[in-house]
Amino acid sequence: MPDSALDLRQDAARLTARLVDFPSESGTEKALADAVEEALRELPHLSVTRYGNNVVARTGLGRSERVILAGHIDTVPIAGNVPSRLDEHGVLWGCGTSDMKSGVAVQLRIAATVPEPNRDLTFVFYDNEEVAAHLNGLGHLAEAHPDWLAGDFAVLLEPSQGQVEGGCQGTLRVHLRTEGVRAHSARGWMGANAIHAAGPLLARLAAYEPRRPVIDGLEYREGLNAVRIEGGVAGNVIPDACTVTVNFRYAPDRSEEEALAHVREVFEGCGVAELVVDDSSPGALPGLAHPAARAFLEAVGGEPRPKFGWTDVSRFSALGVPAVNYGPGDPNLAHKRDERVETELILHCEERLRRWLTS
Amino acid sequence: MPDSALDLRQDAARLTARLVDFPSESGTEKALADAVEEALRELPHLSVTRYGNNVVARTGLGRSERVILAGHIDTVPIAGNVPSRLDEHGVLWGCGTSDMKSGVAVQLRIAATVPEPNRDLTFVFYDNEEVAAHLNGLGHLAEAHPDWLAGDFAVLLEPSQGQVEGGCQGTLRVHLRTEGVRAHSARGWMGANAIHAAGPLLARLAAYEPRRPVIDGLEYREGLNAVRIEGGVAGNVIPDACTVTVNFRYAPDRSEEEALAHVREVFEGCGVAELVVDDSSPGALPGLAHPAARAFLEAVGGEPRPKFGWTDVSRFSALGVPAVNYGPGDPNLAHKRDERVETELILHCEERLRRWLTS
Repeated sequence: MPDSALDLRQDAARLTARLVDFPSESGTEKALADAVEEALRELPHLSVTRYGNNVVARTGLGRSERVILAGHIDTVPIAGNVPSRLDEHGVLWGCGTSDMKSGVAVQLRIAATVPEPNRDLTFVFYDNEEVAAHLNGLGHLAEAHPDWLAGDFAVLLEPSQGQVEGGCQGTLRVHLRTEGVRAHSARGWMGANAIHAAGPLLARLAAYEPRRPVIDGLEYREGLNAVRIEGGVAGNVIPDACTVTVNFRYAPDRSEEEALAHVREVFEGCGVAELVVDDSSPGALPGLAHPAARAFLEAVGGEPRPKFGWTDVSRFSALGVPAVNYGPGDPNLAHKRDERVETELILHCEERLRRWLTS
Repeated sequence: MPDSALDLRQDAARLTARLVDFPSESGTEKALADAVEEALRELPHLSVTRYGNNVVARTGLGRSERVILAGHIDTVPIAGNVPSRLDEHGVLWGCGTSDMKSGVAVQLRIAATVPEPNRDLTFVFYDNEEVAAHLNGLGHLAEAHPDWLAGDFAVLLEPSQGQVEGGCQGTLRVHLRTEGVRAHSARGWMGANAIHAAGPLLARLAAYEPRRPVIDGLEYREGLNAVRIEGGVAGNVIPDACTVTVNFRYAPDRSEEEALAHVREVFEGCGVAELVVDDSSPGALPGLAHPAARAFLEAVGGEPRPKFGWTDVSRFSALGVPAVNYGPGDPNLAHKRDERVETELILHCEERLRRWLTS
């Protein structure tokens, strides 16, 4: 068992190493949630609550704005890359260094070192982000205690290499089924080939021209892609069914319903017998026009980028809270055996956030 | 254990019932092969040889022509449909009634009752027809003892409802692979979609116009069909590979090589990265112009039909022996739980063959 105490006086880089050495694969976060809760309860300017292994701490200074700093405390399964290792270039290696114990370290440092922020703060630490959506701790909080997540703006400290990533695209996955009539392939004219019937559908996909809309100054890029195709009964049978699974990644100016309507329209008249929605998650508008967001952008600097992949900012968006990703990790290293983070970037992010919340 | 003796004095319908009640699923034919061999050895006008569970019996009358009557003694797995049952309409139910113990009964009856045929006769009883091609007893005989199968014409007593089915079509199965580049579907423009790339290939299949060549007076019908399609990595990944399995059923005026060349030509220039041959079996020309075949057609009557499915007549064809299917079973009932045969048709087939071989 690791020593359960977290020393928030350490700098964010050392604290990251400490958190990485405190394993918390999804589903096993309790010990770390306990340690986070205990450390936060030591801070007299915060009121701390807990729901499951989700810990929420808030200032209550009566400021006119409230901002949320959120991060998940779980990691993907460890792949021989714990404990952490700091190399001679100041790079910290290990599971969760990038995604996202470095971000959690920054949250904890702000909590410990900014007792009188210029905006009220809510710190959210949640579990089960790396597994199925229905287990997600932020989702559980949003359902059970939406008031704990109330605020004007949220920063999710997911890896973004110290750049602001605004909003996120939505994702819709549908199964498109074509139909035919089975027959022995030696007497193919007695059947109707469902795989051949998928041809027009694939042609429509190949010809599709995705939009690149600009929203709040960020250019999003949509995409409509077959991610799976399956058809066939046996090597000598004309198949009576074929299913193409299509993933639509769409910019956050479309709602879930609009995205589905668009997909239906794209495949109209090309022989789809059935369209079944497999998965749907809305996008999130970047919300960069909000005063708190504008101040944040000014403080952290750089050019905000759109987020193409789906992230938990969308959960805040669904609660009416504009949100961005901003964290020290590199998203391209997340979930990899050679996951790592530049310690300098951790300190840099901590410093920028402190500047935003104190100036 | 069933009584091992076969009484060839019974009529072909009763003998069929006896054979059905003598289980011989593929791989378990030894007892039945023993019984067939024993019964044939009782007939002084035949010389009997054996190779594995394959039994061959021949007359040696010095006739100018030799014809072969061939049938397999195995069945598909029994499906609660043994022992046989004769209903009040003269229909015999049970596993193998149609495919093809009724045909085997006719062979045995001809062997027993036509001691001085007008053409020399070779009776072939072989195993493992219902399983993988490399196990097929006729194939083993053709390899080890091709001289045992020498002849001018062959009749395979496979189910054909008492109609002559001439030759058989060839079959070629190929895997056509398209390629792409993997990427996260949220950043689809960084990849290339291999499923989309299969669209032109499916369009080519849908537009394909199969030939209907007439050979020896029989109209064949070719067909080119996708029988399987598979592609996809995960619900959020642009797939880098897609495989379409295509089955070409071709008329016996094409050789295997010509069939493959044709398929290559059909898919030229539509983005196929790789073509792999999965399975290839040549067709068989009907050979109905041969004098023995003409006499056979006259004796049995009816209009000969082309055989679209692949059968063992092709093995005879490869040995230079024209061959047809002619048997009392119904091919549409083969392999079914409610497999059955009209006993009248068994007697009819026996009678027609006897007429051909004695008149």
